[in-house]
Parts: sequence; structure tokens; C-alpha cells
Amino acid sequence: MSDKLITPQVLKGFRDYLPDAMMARERIMETARRVYRSYGFSPIDTPSLEYTEILLGKGGDETDKQMFRFTDNGNRDVSMRFDLTIPLARFAAQHLHEIGTPFKRYHLANVWRGENTQRGRYREFMQCDFDTIGTESNASDIETLLVIYDLLKAIGFDDFTIRVNNRLVLNGVLAQLGIQDKSVGVLRVIDKLPKVGEAVVLDELVSKVGLAQTEASQILALLGDGVTLDSLEQSLQGNETAMRGVSNLRQLFATVKQAGLPDSAVQLDIRIARGLDYYTGTIYETFLGAMPTIGSICSGGRYDNLAGLFTKEKLPGVGASLGLDRLLAAMEDLGLVDKASTPAVVFIPLFDEAYLASYVALGRRLRKAGFSTEVFPESKKLGKQLQYADRKGFRVAVIAGGDEFQEHRWQLKDLKNGTKHDVVDAQLESALGELLAAKS
Amino acid sequence: MSDKLITPQVLKGFRDYLPDAMMARERIMETARRVYRSYGFSPIDTPSLEYTEILLGKGGDETDKQMFRFTDNGNRDVSMRFDLTIPLARFAAQHLHEIGTPFKRYHLANVWRGENTQRGRYREFMQCDFDTIGTESNASDIETLLVIYDLLKAIGFDDFTIRVNNRLVLNGVLAQLGIQDKSVGVLRVIDKLPKVGEAVVLDELVSKVGLAQTEASQILALLGDGVTLDSLEQSLQGNETAMRGVSNLRQLFATVKQAGLPDSAVQLDIRIARGLDYYTGTIYETFLGAMPTIGSICSGGRYDNLAGLFTKEKLPGVGASLGLDRLLAAMEDLGLVDKASTPAVVFIPLFDEAYLASYVALGRRLRKAGFSTEVFPESKKLGKQLQYADRKGFRVAVIAGGDEFQEHRWQLKDLKNGTKHDVVDAQLESALGELLAAKS
Repeated sequence: MSDKLITPQVLKGFRDYLPDAMMARERIMETARRVYRSYGFSPIDTPSLEYTEILLGKGGDETDKQMFRFTDNGNRDVSMRFDLTIPLARFAAQHLHEIGTPFKRYHLANVWRGENTQRGRYREFMQCDFDTIGTESNASDIETLLVIYDLLKAIGFDDFTIRVNNRLVLNGVLAQLGIQDKSVGVLRVIDKLPKVGEAVVLDELVSKVGLAQTEASQILALLGDGVTLDSLEQSLQGNETAMRGVSNLRQLFATVKQAGLPDSAVQLDIRIARGLDYYTGTIYETFLGAMPTIGSICSGGRYDNLAGLFTKEKLPGVGASLGLDRLLAAMEDLGLVDKASTPAVVFIPLFDEAYLASYVALGRRLRKAGFSTEVFPESKKLGKQLQYADRKGFRVAVIAGGDEFQEHRWQLKDLKNGTKHDVVDAQLESALGELLAAKS
Repeated sequence: MSDKLITPQVLKGFRDYLPDAMMARERIMETARRVYRSYGFSPIDTPSLEYTEILLGKGGDETDKQMFRFTDNGNRDVSMRFDLTIPLARFAAQHLHEIGTPFKRYHLANVWRGENTQRGRYREFMQCDFDTIGTESNASDIETLLVIYDLLKAIGFDDFTIRVNNRLVLNGVLAQLGIQDKSVGVLRVIDKLPKVGEAVVLDELVSKVGLAQTEASQILALLGDGVTLDSLEQSLQGNETAMRGVSNLRQLFATVKQAGLPDSAVQLDIRIARGLDYYTGTIYETFLGAMPTIGSICSGGRYDNLAGLFTKEKLPGVGASLGLDRLLAAMEDLGLVDKASTPAVVFIPLFDEAYLASYVALGRRLRKAGFSTEVFPESKKLGKQLQYADRKGFRVAVIAGGDEFQEHRWQLKDLKNGTKHDVVDAQLESALGELLAAKS
């Protein structure tokens, strides 16, 4: 051992996950996997490191600055992935003939961005994406919405709204006004409407995008409050692009209604545009009723051409991404994250070291019956051991010493309320089951 | 879209996981999590990137050369982690007062090493570690063995052997011969015995380690075939260190026997030493009966002091690591990996687009009943859709057109043997359940 200690610390923007945080994270990841799989999405994984040329793609300046990029020992220009979309594009182009289309994949993996660190923003974070590629069918857009709905329900939320729009409608509005060429700029500004209000948006449409004052007002009139699919159909009549968007949205709303989703869970929001110039059809954003201010926790949309940088084959698709870390931060604030730091529920104190083999066998017996069970490894004072169990969040202790092993009887201690229960051997599992069921 | 396409390719030593490979991987990872949790091991995670100073630790040359190391945009000397042990040491030192001891953690995460790429060796691979730190109790050594056993069984193996040794016995042998100062070199050479045979080991003990010929022979005599705990107790009598090792091994074998593990699954192998000079007590290696040549797929041991580089507090511990990628390679070779590339079992072809909402509702109904179900998004010819289903590995198709939706009756097609079954609405779920149960 060296005399000079190295200070144990993590890099700025990175974090350790201690057991309570990691268990919450694993729970959501497992839920996401389960829901994605239930619809037939398959998992894939891609390397954390790729050729920089591939990740840079079109080479956005912003992305470029944020990438962890370096020269490896083989003198290659490499970077850590900063999202899961470009890797999917590369993957799809590379393996197209093996995977076939339509191809439905999910991908849960870390990405890295050297962003300025603020509350809830880390330089390493997990994305939970799912996409259906190789089809233009609106059925996949509808399914995407259902997956988002099932996912939020499965995580434990009842009060949330998936806001849906279709880029075709927005594009129709722009075409109507003859300002298609300014679409990217217009959509970027409109996207900010809920945050900055009408006055600022009007001003920016003129000052930043270069619209005439009347055009800016018309856009806001078309996208104002109270807009419905019916009103859009009226005001955009004859505009084929917009009508296709309206018709797809109609089918989507009708289908999810028939599938049993409550009206409150899915809403038209004609103003959401998402900043990216990447989406071309349906768009999704998801807001928690209890915490709308944290922004969308599950967003996505339809795109025309995923992998144009890597293949001439056109790959349209639709998908969304769960913002795991944002969601977890919200759940912590809402008190929805269990504070236990052990995944086991049953604690067996080691009372009498001479009986170690009996304790070990008891632990195995309970695990076999489906109870996750920890046997304490040292015969410290019982009080100390129970303190440990309490701090970790175990729920029941099974207390036994030499006498109990001889006589095959057990004392169960409910670690939440302190009550004790003596049980005979044959009733150990059933008594444990009852005690645990009563508490959840 | 640019005209010049970027070639879609991954870096040398890295790989994509396509659905079939990734599903096998996820299955094992879930099994590992489940088994680790059932013993009360908690998950943690640490950053992929750390200060190089921390990861270098003692600064082994070999490790240094293999690390993905670079200067980040903030001018920090950073590296991607190359194992999960040093991050655990840093983590434990940094959070000791929060986590307390004993601390049982598991950690499933990628690590990166710029190794020469050979068959089954990748530069990015997953480690599945579990450790108990902060206790010297042999109970934890015994538990480690039980976890390895349960893990292999849960993954689906029946025929495997966990070879166990204790470094104290080896150290005792060396002390007996008065060559403790050469222990690292001796152990490194002995570790190779099963691979290179006695002659080479004898030669290397003399030529490389600098032992006298007689010392080398004595070591091989003590560690030869047929050695038992009884014979060791005889030959090493009075050697306190060795006796402590023998006694711990005795307790371990007796306890796991009482816990119901078959004799064949756990064997004393006095010659396994593991190359590292890191282990100080019990040592584990695990070999598959059907494929011994791939080497140990789950190895570990007890160490005296985990985090000496980062804290003055002494943290003894014991743990092991599942070699996920090596195991998967073996399972593929053994034909144990399912070739399906979808996690869903039920396939619903889209026969009549006018009934999209009915297909969607049917999918939801089956998912609710616990059947993972994919609805095809396009109304292509039925044959094409079933071809897709077949290629992906779905097990049953539920076929319905307009008539069927009107009349609430369904045709089930077993996609493995081609048989068809007409069922009425009320029997859909039960008929599906039977069909699927019959096939597994």
C-alpha cells in the first residue's frame, strides 16, 4: 500500500448510483423492457465507441463540441456515442439484409455528452429508445402511442397526458401561407410557445425568422387555443399535406379510444413541433399531471429517412425515447422512490456461529420459497444486526438460535412495526408470506 | 442528404448485438440480477469514465497500455474503466459512511480494454460482479460459492464444477519451504499447471522463478494429484497459516453439503491460484462439464484490502465475476441459445386495414392476458406476413379478417408445425395458453 492516498472522486457531470437510486433505475429499466417486449420490440446493442465520422454524421457544431472524442491507440478518430439514433441508423444500414423490415428494436444504453452540468443534467445518462423502422404505416404511429401509454402506466403513473401532433399539419399551415422555406426556423420558434408566450413568439417570428407581421399573426391564429381536428379540417381544406396529417391524427385518436385509452391521456396539441428538423409526421410528448414543469418525459415522432448518411435505401420509421433520469428525478421529488437499499425482504441474523450451516440452509429454504433472504455474515450482538437490517430496509427478520434450530420453531420480527410472531416450522413460509403481504 | 455515403462499420474489437444475441444476453443478465438480489446484494453503478489517476491505481504497465485514455474538453486526464473492481474500491472509499459495512453489491456493466482481438475477446465487454466487503467472515466466502452455484443452475446448467482453493494453504506450502518471498512468481507459474503440464511448470519454477530443483519438486509433490484436506492437514501440520486455510475450506465444504449442493458441483483444487497477487483467501473457478476447455466462466476470491489506494480504512472482502461473453460463446456452441429474434410469442397479421382498430384492440387484449403480441403494421399478403413471423420466431399467429371480427371467432396457427385451430371468442386466451404450453 502506498502512503499517499488518491482522493476518491468522480468527474464533474458524472455520478455514482448508490443502491436506493440504482434499484429505482433498474425497476424502471425492467418495466421498459417488459413493455417494449410485450409489443414485439427486440433488444439490440451497439458499441459505446464508434468512428467519429459515423457519429458526427451531418456534423452539427453543437454535437461536435459535446462529444467525448479522441484518438485511440490504433490512431483512429473515435468518439463515445451521444445518442442511440445515429447508432441505430448505422446499425440498420449495416445489417439491413439480416434484420429485414419492418424492424422493431429497443435499446437501453448510456450515452455521453459534455454538456454544461445543471440540476438533473449529467454527462453520462441512459436512453431508453424504441423504434419501428421500414414502414410508413400509421399503424406503427398508433402503436408507438400505445407503448408510451402502457409504459407510463406500468411505471406507476395514472395522471399523465401524451400530447400528439403531426408535422404534416404544421407543414400544411406553412404551405398555406407560402413560407415552407422558413419551416425549420418557424417550427423552432413555435416549439417555444408554451414556455415563452405569444408575444415573444410573434416577435421572434418576425425578428429572427424574417416573417411579415401578418404571416406571424396568421400562424398564431391557426395554432391558437381551441383548435380541433374539425377546425383544422375547415381552415386547411384543399391543402393535401395538412389533410393527410389530420386524417392520420383522426385514425390515431379513434383507434386508441376504441382500444380503451381514456380521453384525458391523449390530447391533440397542434403547437408541439419539437426542435429538431428531423421529424416528418406524428410527434409525441408526454407530461406528468403531478409535475408538468419538468417537461416531456417521453418524446418521439415519425421520420422519413433514418439512415440516409449510410445507405441509399430509404428507411422511414417512428419511435420514442423515455427520459429515464428526468423521470427518476421527478419520481424522487414526488416521493415515489422507495428508500430501501436492499433488494431482499427477509433478514436472518447470525445468532450462534456454531449453527452457521443451519442458518445457511434456512436462507436457501426461504429463497427457494421465493423470499429474497440475506443471512448476516458475523455473529455480532443481535441489536447491531437488527440495526443494520433496519437501515437497509429489510421487512422481516427470522430470528433463530441453537434452541430454535433444535426445536424447529422461529421468531418472525416485523421490522417496520416491531411486532413479533412465534411460528412452528411448517408455517414458516405461509406466516412470512402473510406478514409481507400485509405490509405492501 | 449528402451524395457520398459513409460506410457503416464498427471499430475493430467492437460488435453489434443483433436481437437473437442480445436476447440471450439480457436473459443471462436478468438471471444474474435475480440471483444476486435473492441473497441481498444491491445494485450500484459508477461512471464509465473516471480520472485516469484513479483507474491506474498502482499503475500496472499492462493495464496502462490497454486503457482507452484521453484528455477531455476540460483538459482532464480521463479513462474508460477497464474493470469493475477499481471503481468499487473508489466507490467504497468515497461513500463508506453512507453504505456502511458489511456491504453487498452487484454491478453489471461494460468495461473497455484495448486488447489484441482474438476469438471471443472484445474491446468492450460486460462484467457481472458481486462482492461482499467489510467482513472477514468465512460465512461470506461460503455464500459466494452458493451464489455461483445458484447462478449457474438458474442460467440452465446442471453439469458444472466450482473448483475451490484457499490462498492460505498455498501460502503455507511456500512458508514451509521457506520461499514466501517468491510467492507471486511461484503462484503465477503454478496457475498454469492444468494448461502446460508438470514438466513445463517444473522448468519455469527453476528458470523463471529461481527455485532450486528440489524446492520445485517439493511444491509439485504437495500440490500433486490426490491431495485432500486430510492429506494437507497431515503434511502441513503446525503451519498455522495453512491450517487456517484448511479449516475454512472444511467449513465451506461441510456447509454447502448440508445446504444440499451435490458433491460433484464443488471440488477442492489445491492447484488453482489465479494469476493475480490480489487474492488472499478462498479462490473460486467454475468450469462447464460440457465445455471445460473454454476456461473458468465464473471466478473470484477473497482479498484483504480492497481500497488501500483510496482510504486508510481496511476493507476485506470476497466476490466473484461471471464472464458473460465467454459464457454466451459457450452456450452458442452448445446450441443453448434460442434462435428467435423476437421476444413476442403471438403474431397478428393485418388482414384488412379497415379493421385496424380491431386488430389493435385484439393485441391489447392478448397482452393484458400475458401474451406478448405483435400486430403487423401493413396489410401485405398473408403469406408475406407469415413469412416475416416465421423468420422472427413467433410461435402462434392469431388470424382474423373482417368476418372473424364480426363473428368473434379466431384462427390460431401454430407457426412451428403449421397446424390450425379454430376457436370461439371465449376460448381465445385458454387455447393460446395451451398451444404455447405444449411447445415449451
